[in-house]
Amino acid sequence: MKKYDIFELTLQGPTDGNPFTEVDLRAKFSFMNYKRIVSGFYDGDGVYKIRFMPDREGEWSYTTISNSGELDGKEGSFVCDPAIPGNHGPVRVMSKFHFAYDDGTPYYPYGTTAYNWTNQEPSLVAQTIETLKTSSFNKVRYSPFPKYYLYNTNEPQLYPYEGGLASGVKDASKVSMPGFFSGKPSEAYKFDFSRPNPKFWHQFEECVFTLDDLGIETDLILFHPYDRWGFSQMTREENLLYMRYIVARLGAVKSIWWSMANEFDLFFNRNEEDWEIYARALEEWDAAQHLCSIHNCRDPYDYSKGWITHVSIQRIDYHSHVELTHKWREKWQKPVVVDEICYEGNIESGFGNLPGEELTKRFWDVVVRGGYCTHGETYLRDDEILWWSKGGWLNGSSPKRIAFLRKLNERIGPIDPSPVMEWDLPWGLSGKQFKYETKSPFSPFSVAADKMLCYFSFAQPAVRTFNLPVDVPYEVEIIDTWEMTITKLNGKFSGPSRISLPGKQYIAVLFTKL
Amino acid sequence: MKKYDIFELTLQGPTDGNPFTEVDLRAKFSFMNYKRIVSGFYDGDGVYKIRFMPDREGEWSYTTISNSGELDGKEGSFVCDPAIPGNHGPVRVMSKFHFAYDDGTPYYPYGTTAYNWTNQEPSLVAQTIETLKTSSFNKVRYSPFPKYYLYNTNEPQLYPYEGGLASGVKDASKVSMPGFFSGKPSEAYKFDFSRPNPKFWHQFEECVFTLDDLGIETDLILFHPYDRWGFSQMTREENLLYMRYIVARLGAVKSIWWSMANEFDLFFNRNEEDWEIYARALEEWDAAQHLCSIHNCRDPYDYSKGWITHVSIQRIDYHSHVELTHKWREKWQKPVVVDEICYEGNIESGFGNLPGEELTKRFWDVVVRGGYCTHGETYLRDDEILWWSKGGWLNGSSPKRIAFLRKLNERIGPIDPSPVMEWDLPWGLSGKQFKYETKSPFSPFSVAADKMLCYFSFAQPAVRTFNLPVDVPYEVEIIDTWEMTITKLNGKFSGPSRISLPGKQYIAVLFTKL
Repeated sequence: MKKYDIFELTLQGPTDGNPFTEVDLRAKFSFMNYKRIVSGFYDGDGVYKIRFMPDREGEWSYTTISNSGELDGKEGSFVCDPAIPGNHGPVRVMSKFHFAYDDGTPYYPYGTTAYNWTNQEPSLVAQTIETLKTSSFNKVRYSPFPKYYLYNTNEPQLYPYEGGLASGVKDASKVSMPGFFSGKPSEAYKFDFSRPNPKFWHQFEECVFTLDDLGIETDLILFHPYDRWGFSQMTREENLLYMRYIVARLGAVKSIWWSMANEFDLFFNRNEEDWEIYARALEEWDAAQHLCSIHNCRDPYDYSKGWITHVSIQRIDYHSHVELTHKWREKWQKPVVVDEICYEGNIESGFGNLPGEELTKRFWDVVVRGGYCTHGETYLRDDEILWWSKGGWLNGSSPKRIAFLRKLNERIGPIDPSPVMEWDLPWGLSGKQFKYETKSPFSPFSVAADKMLCYFSFAQPAVRTFNLPVDVPYEVEIIDTWEMTITKLNGKFSGPSRISLPGKQYIAVLFTKL
Repeated sequence: MKKYDIFELTLQGPTDGNPFTEVDLRAKFSFMNYKRIVSGFYDGDGVYKIRFMPDREGEWSYTTISNSGELDGKEGSFVCDPAIPGNHGPVRVMSKFHFAYDDGTPYYPYGTTAYNWTNQEPSLVAQTIETLKTSSFNKVRYSPFPKYYLYNTNEPQLYPYEGGLASGVKDASKVSMPGFFSGKPSEAYKFDFSRPNPKFWHQFEECVFTLDDLGIETDLILFHPYDRWGFSQMTREENLLYMRYIVARLGAVKSIWWSMANEFDLFFNRNEEDWEIYARALEEWDAAQHLCSIHNCRDPYDYSKGWITHVSIQRIDYHSHVELTHKWREKWQKPVVVDEICYEGNIESGFGNLPGEELTKRFWDVVVRGGYCTHGETYLRDDEILWWSKGGWLNGSSPKRIAFLRKLNERIGPIDPSPVMEWDLPWGLSGKQFKYETKSPFSPFSVAADKMLCYFSFAQPAVRTFNLPVDVPYEVEIIDTWEMTITKLNGKFSGPSRISLPGKQYIAVLFTKL
């Protein structure tokens, strides 16, 4: 066993009754004087599995606990060796507003969105993986549940539960379907929500494992409201069974993040009490303590709740969003990931018809204020395969610019918003900060740092006076974020410095202390 | 005499003492049973003038009233004939949120900004007039007072008051100058604020008359804080003398609008009480009852005040502005003119470095929500002649697009915001409005009108479903606001209509009821 890999214990057990609900299986994993309890899960055909991710090197032992005699009291031990090179473990919160892998290696989330890619036909799933291999996105937001929405009306390959067409129905497409968000499942289907479908989950977890191998985090959306099968309308008990099952199956995968819901506020049948109950259950079951958040449509969730590790917000207004990033950090004192800021594309709805320039701009505007941002793409295709939902191909102009930004962010390090922002120019700081006096009547002091990044967004200045600290030499790089060029200026700069700029949009300037 | 022209009475009077403060001269103009009182003014060399703009056809009579025997009791009469074709009189508020000339002809303000153009050397003043002749701007915001600010450090050709260099000073440029907005006049100058300089005012009013001849309104800024001469630091009494003088000189010009101040909140020596006192004086003296407003820098003035005819607002935030236009209308129940929404240009400050695309977009975003917008241009030049302040030349890409919008607005008529806005698409309506049912779960009804305009701003949809009323046929025109093309679609549209769009930014769609 290597650290952060999955230890899997396979057991044979009862097949009678409903093994999903009637058999309770757990294991206690012990290392030195501390222990972890994880749930096992039924994988069909009398097979039970327990998965566990050891995060300490050394000898671990385990004992199973079950209400089934066949499964109870199994003991064993294993030695956990150092992680293989390149495996840094799960992502954690670092320095309050940022992220790092468990081994301390910084992680900068530059993710994308493909909500329903795992439920497409195999060739399309393979194509999505090919695309991700050559992109620079290191996180994907998606859900096990199939999706029913604009450009998403096809059936999934498999269903997550036993069941399918209701009796007497031969073709679901001949049955009238409810409206999106109606909350009414179609009468075409009938499922047994007490019996997950292991075949579905084999297929789904294969996708998770593949991304894991590619170094891509899975931002796993537990619940979403885009539904015609009834998966969004299950009872509280059924939801908890589902959650326990998925945590048992996938909680040992290092690259999992939990997203409690996408657009939680479009679940008109759930209230905050429901979400808090699910959150407490997840906290109890998730031995690996993955990152966890919840994503809004309109008003944000109360991200101050203890179970929420980071803000996973959607722009709260069509016009007002990026400029609030540092205020959101301040408000919730957590990392801010703007997990929907509209997508690059040309569909009819305002969430999916930004030009690449605009999406790239929004990324920069978020990052310079100390946040992170998530990509999505919605270009119309005759075959209705839009990346944002089904995966497939990336055709937009923003991905390579976002990759450029990610690379630069990795070079600069974690960026925090300056405590002193200019009214027309946001500043991000990295490294050691220090106050200094300025001669500006508007701000008698400012704050500098080892690295300072400012971003002009839609403005196109041909010149700017930067009030740098006196006697502290800086190197200056002019960054054309659209052309992806970095031009280092000759000389050192300190004190008020009037610097020529390209006089075009999308320019950033990076100051590095010498 | 023609209606809306200036009747001018010239009298000889006393030259001793201070004629500006010691001689009170007014005239009562009578028509049928109503009368107007106007102030006269001293024009130097013993010459006194009374100006009056008759706005009714027929016989008018007048009598002067003065504390000087030479000027008192002069009587006369004249016949006011119909206005010459093309002279529609002063602009008034129409239909609560719009404007029309006094004769009822609609007026759509598409103005520009050249704060300090009248104080430049004669060849540059002439150049500004040439530029305005070929532009389509029908209003200019400017002030009689010279300006001291970035790219505005030259001396005016003349001073508005007697005086100039302080005794012992031979060259003002050798005297240290205060910072912008410091509120401290330079010691280089010495003026007598009780003695306006008639030569200055001859030159200034020549500029006003020239614009008037060109059909361009003068949005006359009475006070501004960008000052090193002391004109922003005069006493209340001196300010009232100044106002009375300017109203007497220019209040009879049909094309005058009063802008009480530019960025009133940067006058750190004045409070709301001051502005309200000046407003009451202006209301009393302004016989022609011109449009009147006041312009903010940060927080808006209380535009609900009775003396304010329209909102003359500056974007209140770097990011949040155009989308508030219809809310500002709603709040203050007056026409909204966004008199600064940042300028096209490339200077270092965020108020003056928008690309033409962005400024044009803001115009559209304001107009489709039932407001009006004002242009400005700030491209750097070695000679520091930036249009926004000194006039000269227009080099930007927005003026011809703004001209295109003005023409379209004139064709459509006054635009009011739809009571039902889509979250990602603003709608402006013109003509008769009517409610209709929709099948959208988000809005069970909508409001249509004879003409309906929507604007996609930064979005680039390739298609949109428009939920038009059923059984009401509309003609559809796709407007590329940047390329300035209008493409009429074949056929009539009613009910839910899925319409292909160009898939690029800056597209508007106009629906016209057949």
